[in-house]
Amino acid sequence: MTVRQENLVRVGKKPVMNYVVACVTLFNSGKDEIVLRARGQSINNAVDIVERLRKFQKNLQVRDISIGSEDITRPDGTRASISTIEIALRKE
Amino acid sequence: MTVRQENLVRVGKKPVMNYVVACVTLFNSGKDEIVLRARGQSINNAVDIVERLRKFQKNLQVRDISIGSEDITRPDGTRASISTIEIALRKE
Repeated sequence: MTVRQENLVRVGKKPVMNYVVACVTLFNSGKDEIVLRARGQSINNAVDIVERLRKFQKNLQVRDISIGSEDITRPDGTRASISTIEIALRKE
Repeated sequence: MTVRQENLVRVGKKPVMNYVVACVTLFNSGKDEIVLRARGQSINNAVDIVERLRKFQKNLQVRDISIGSEDITRPDGTRASISTIEIALRKE
């Protein structure tokens, strides 16, 4: 799936509600579709965000969920593989 | 999706490789399709399991991913909502 940068929410270590608000703001600014992207330990947060967002955003639809992995280089120079998830959301 | 009990792998707090082995065992016992189910903090483990499983199981296909939430009752009697994921895997 092609993801435009302005529709993308990268899920990190901030509180879940920060990302929920970011999603609501994107939808309110006229975006019909947004994508949540998370890696590693943040993957469960991405799912939490969608479930919380359902309460704030009517007619929310999960259009697609895909999983994968990325190769990363740790600060000490070693290489590792990290799991990723992308959740595409649509407002009807 | 209807999930038969014998095709279901419930992902909990054990090491990720335990579940990878459980999946390989199910496929080797003749199952074409299995379902991983995880809740809360274990959701990222479910994604890790799939990514690791790809190395052991040729022709693995992610057939469906669905997310949702469940109401649970905590040991102290309070109610809470917890996010869930179900990943359906198929061996071609």
